[in-house]
Amino acid sequence: MAWARWGCCPWLVLLCACTWGRPKAANLTREDVRNCSTSPPYIPVTAVNTTERLTALRQQIQMLNLSAYIIPDTDAHMSEYIGDHDKRRAWITGFTGSAGTAVVTMGKAALWTDSRYWTQAERQMDCNWELHREGNIVTWLLTEVPVGGLVGFDPFLFSIDSWESYNADLQASDRQLVSIADNLVDLVWGSERPAVPSQPIYALQEAFIGSTWQDKVSDIRSQMQQRREAPTAVLLSALDETAWLFNLRSSDIPYNPFFYSYTLFTDSFIRLFVNKSRLSSETLQYLNADCTLHMCVQLEDYSQVRDSIKAYASGDVRIWIGTSYTTYGIYELIPKEKLVEDTYSPVMVTKAVKNSKEQALLRASHVRDAVAVIRYLVWLEKNVPSGAVDEFSGAELLDKFRGEEEFSSGPSFETISASGLNAALAHYSPTKELHRKLSSDEMYLVDSGGQYWDGTTDITRTVHWGTPSAFQKEAYTRVLIGNIDLSRLVFPAATSGRMVEAFARKALWDVGLNYYHGTGHGIGNFLCVHEWPVGFQSSNIAMAKGMFTSIEPGYYQDGEFGVRIEDIALVVEAETKYPGTYLAFEVVSLVPYDRNLIDVSLLSPEQLQYVNRYYQTIREKVGPELQRRQLLEEFAWLQQHTEPLSARAPRAASLVSLLAVSVLAILGWSA
Amino acid sequence: MAWARWGCCPWLVLLCACTWGRPKAANLTREDVRNCSTSPPYIPVTAVNTTERLTALRQQIQMLNLSAYIIPDTDAHMSEYIGDHDKRRAWITGFTGSAGTAVVTMGKAALWTDSRYWTQAERQMDCNWELHREGNIVTWLLTEVPVGGLVGFDPFLFSIDSWESYNADLQASDRQLVSIADNLVDLVWGSERPAVPSQPIYALQEAFIGSTWQDKVSDIRSQMQQRREAPTAVLLSALDETAWLFNLRSSDIPYNPFFYSYTLFTDSFIRLFVNKSRLSSETLQYLNADCTLHMCVQLEDYSQVRDSIKAYASGDVRIWIGTSYTTYGIYELIPKEKLVEDTYSPVMVTKAVKNSKEQALLRASHVRDAVAVIRYLVWLEKNVPSGAVDEFSGAELLDKFRGEEEFSSGPSFETISASGLNAALAHYSPTKELHRKLSSDEMYLVDSGGQYWDGTTDITRTVHWGTPSAFQKEAYTRVLIGNIDLSRLVFPAATSGRMVEAFARKALWDVGLNYYHGTGHGIGNFLCVHEWPVGFQSSNIAMAKGMFTSIEPGYYQDGEFGVRIEDIALVVEAETKYPGTYLAFEVVSLVPYDRNLIDVSLLSPEQLQYVNRYYQTIREKVGPELQRRQLLEEFAWLQQHTEPLSARAPRAASLVSLLAVSVLAILGWSA
Repeated sequence: MAWARWGCCPWLVLLCACTWGRPKAANLTREDVRNCSTSPPYIPVTAVNTTERLTALRQQIQMLNLSAYIIPDTDAHMSEYIGDHDKRRAWITGFTGSAGTAVVTMGKAALWTDSRYWTQAERQMDCNWELHREGNIVTWLLTEVPVGGLVGFDPFLFSIDSWESYNADLQASDRQLVSIADNLVDLVWGSERPAVPSQPIYALQEAFIGSTWQDKVSDIRSQMQQRREAPTAVLLSALDETAWLFNLRSSDIPYNPFFYSYTLFTDSFIRLFVNKSRLSSETLQYLNADCTLHMCVQLEDYSQVRDSIKAYASGDVRIWIGTSYTTYGIYELIPKEKLVEDTYSPVMVTKAVKNSKEQALLRASHVRDAVAVIRYLVWLEKNVPSGAVDEFSGAELLDKFRGEEEFSSGPSFETISASGLNAALAHYSPTKELHRKLSSDEMYLVDSGGQYWDGTTDITRTVHWGTPSAFQKEAYTRVLIGNIDLSRLVFPAATSGRMVEAFARKALWDVGLNYYHGTGHGIGNFLCVHEWPVGFQSSNIAMAKGMFTSIEPGYYQDGEFGVRIEDIALVVEAETKYPGTYLAFEVVSLVPYDRNLIDVSLLSPEQLQYVNRYYQTIREKVGPELQRRQLLEEFAWLQQHTEPLSARAPRAASLVSLLAVSVLAILGWSA
Repeated sequence: MAWARWGCCPWLVLLCACTWGRPKAANLTREDVRNCSTSPPYIPVTAVNTTERLTALRQQIQMLNLSAYIIPDTDAHMSEYIGDHDKRRAWITGFTGSAGTAVVTMGKAALWTDSRYWTQAERQMDCNWELHREGNIVTWLLTEVPVGGLVGFDPFLFSIDSWESYNADLQASDRQLVSIADNLVDLVWGSERPAVPSQPIYALQEAFIGSTWQDKVSDIRSQMQQRREAPTAVLLSALDETAWLFNLRSSDIPYNPFFYSYTLFTDSFIRLFVNKSRLSSETLQYLNADCTLHMCVQLEDYSQVRDSIKAYASGDVRIWIGTSYTTYGIYELIPKEKLVEDTYSPVMVTKAVKNSKEQALLRASHVRDAVAVIRYLVWLEKNVPSGAVDEFSGAELLDKFRGEEEFSSGPSFETISASGLNAALAHYSPTKELHRKLSSDEMYLVDSGGQYWDGTTDITRTVHWGTPSAFQKEAYTRVLIGNIDLSRLVFPAATSGRMVEAFARKALWDVGLNYYHGTGHGIGNFLCVHEWPVGFQSSNIAMAKGMFTSIEPGYYQDGEFGVRIEDIALVVEAETKYPGTYLAFEVVSLVPYDRNLIDVSLLSPEQLQYVNRYYQTIREKVGPELQRRQLLEEFAWLQQHTEPLSARAPRAASLVSLLAVSVLAILGWSA
């Protein structure tokens, strides 16, 4: 269970769980999907012939006397996105979807994936592979692996949790989970395997960092001293931990400016495991790489991490790790009594709270990001009615607009650009081949974000250019109310997100509606767009001043439309009538909501006032930027779309008619 | 950590945690408390001389070669309240407060208790005892017990959790926790020890049971079959589990109609461990105690439970337990691989959902309970101004009124009757000696409940008979809004209470106020007033139709006043605009709130409407009962106190004046 990886987008997991139960019958007479029940089997042109690959892999499996070998879709850092050379499961199965686990035995090959990928798997896999739509991998293993049989796995592709879960279940049934140091797929992948990235690893400019790497190291070292168990070292496995600590970036992982690395540091040394040739002499100098004192970074090769940790762990040491992002491959090297285990490493927890400079940087990136999104919305408003825009070309244009913003470094994730019924699908992203036209008759949902040197952004807006139905307006407005009610909440310091996320759901619950994903996630400064451990899930840490989180309720009407309204908010101190340490959110995303979809009569006076204050903020922050850039059409659009909303409360209306009636009566009486 | 016991009143734990940090300096020159720093020490007359007791206990400790012996304040069933013969810690220390743990070594004797009991402990303990206001018992043990030393404990007074916690900490420091089967305090307590209860154990009349014991046993047996681990037996340790299963009651425990017992049943037999002589021949017949078939209850002596379980566990069996209410004494008898462990036993979870008859019974008890509380409030309104009422006499009168209600079986817990600043103290209960006069100048909080054959009740009302301050009104109204907002919430089936309890806090949070206790707990049918596992804590199970819970936000202004508004609510299916399985609360407590303390201007129209609908329900349900009983003064009071509240919304007011101005203008114009 690679939860840490899923952890980055926990609401998606929930959506999976929800759709999992409702499989749509695969149409096996279709020509675009395989049909393994005919003789000979029907294999579509989109499928990959995996016979040779499997034969080669089975030779490896046999040599090790294994009964089965598990191939997950993770990398050695539990990353949310993985690089091409880590896509082992895709290569061995042919199936390229982002989620799925394969298991190969001498006689069978099986893939487990969730409902959103079933059709894709039937298109991409040949008949060597069983597709498992339901059921548990371990249950299947118990039928395929004899008692006493060995099940092999790559320990660097298993989180500690997933190892524990597999191990407990297999051990209870007298099968043995065997850690195999060399990945068997890699051994047979050969020259086809994409190369490990080699582009430069660079230091961020001073303008874009919250504090120097030396200050960060000192901070964590002092946390080591304060910790009761007195750890002697901190070991970092997640790629954003090392990137953040040293203010270094590269582009090994799609959408994420990270590079393959580990870090191990103590009070007296700092070791960075990385491909040294990727660092320029300036960067080496920046890291003090030519010395071995306590503020010098000693570079060791990435491949040395196992030996180096093993050697260090043989001494009288205690190594502090965050278990969520540490693989079993690292974990098994260190004797239990030498581990100081937290769910999240001290770097992960420290990184979650942004200092004032980091806050200012993130805010600034959101102003420019708003410009790009507003340019896109203005362009759509003009071009959708002519029928010339589709989901894919739209997403490309939005990427282009973002790319034109200062400090841009590409999108922070694959844009979800979804029209009509597609917006009700979890994870939907259009492709060049498969997409839907945007139309004034349908709602359109766009969930996108950018990487900028100063910050990472993530925003979702849902719009309708024609006449939405009453239900669409109600659903949109209730999602908006959820966003507003959570955004304007005042809550005690150290409240966990889980305790308050229902405020984002109440307006939907009131009428029997809901959404089946999480309500928000942390976000970084030119780091991960889904940055843990901040958020509203039970596994998230308590809210603290300086954290950033998304707030993103939604509503999805199967086969019809989808609504999501997502903003990024900074956790700030609240000023309360009576003194106390209370927190509140300050929304830093700066794009107006679609007035065409708001049913103002559903909003309370307080909610209306909140939106109007937010609109005033957008005007103040984004307006001048649009003017400075001579984006006058966009400026006019912004003014129009941030006009204060006014209540059309039925009560006021009835009082007005009462007034009119009274006046008429009085006139009649006095006449 | 006897959390299961504390679990029954979890909000109180939080309050302890809160006050723990703010010790008030003990005034050591006072004559009512001991002073061990003078020579000779000053011992007040209220203190107990424990020298002989300790000498006898130390002989036992020495004979077993122990370095220390731990004496907790629990019983063998993790009960919330304990019987007199289980008050070992009180007897050995002299300190009678309900919470505290004692540890005795050859040289020292130490007590740990929380801030609300510090003064009481200084009054009741002699100078043999150290009072620990802070610090951890294990930390102290490590300084007093040498490496390799043995720390003894009675395994029947330790929950599994508390054993694990002590054991891990001591083992890590090379001390050994040793399970001592015979309780050492009991050995030295001798003839002074109160007798084990011997009053009859009786079967409930058919009118007061939700289903027969045979149906309940069949239901749990079918749950055993459905369970994947295929348990062969269920073992019940909590006293209310056995009382509920067999529809039997007695009065071994204060406020709780239980009797000392365990139950072990399989598909083929049922064993009830109890003092058999306490059951009449009718009750034995009711239990089919004269046969050994699968629907016959075989009675074994309470003292046989250990041997009987051990014998059963030696076979090829799997025993299903709820770990929260099972002591380590039972747990250590069963090999790990023969345990099927849940946090709560299937009986605990099944009992939590009341069937329609149980619901009707609980509702009915709340109508009569409302009559008693209303009689008390009417009486207070007449008698407090004369200064003749104090907290203690008030509580006694309320108990008397409840006692006059049909099916009454005494209070369900010790009444919290607290005037003025006393209401800000957690756990405050007045005594004959120590109490405060009720006054029209102060707020008064009364938290009380009754045991009736048909149901258990628990209600808190806070009142003021004079002129409350603006802050008191605001605090009261915000607590009321919290109660209202949670009570009128609509939420998806299977939502956990933890996810929604913040709705009871929001109105307080808005202005920087909060309360530091839980928001509610389950309640039984003539069972425990704090019935787990229903409630709003993280350890509670998800809400389901048919559960009952209290809803009880509060606010406490140290040294000034306290507010709590507590109702019992039934979880019902909600009717929503769009179809779906949604739940809501239906409040079954039926006593109006104090209009004198409500600032109507803080209530939204929806909140006002909710209160007025609730008042209408009170009129409909309690009004006829008051009339039937000729309680005409109370009926008039009820009518007056349930008059619909009306908004004094400034906006409506201004529209009215606008209307008046317009009318005048028109008159002028038309004249």
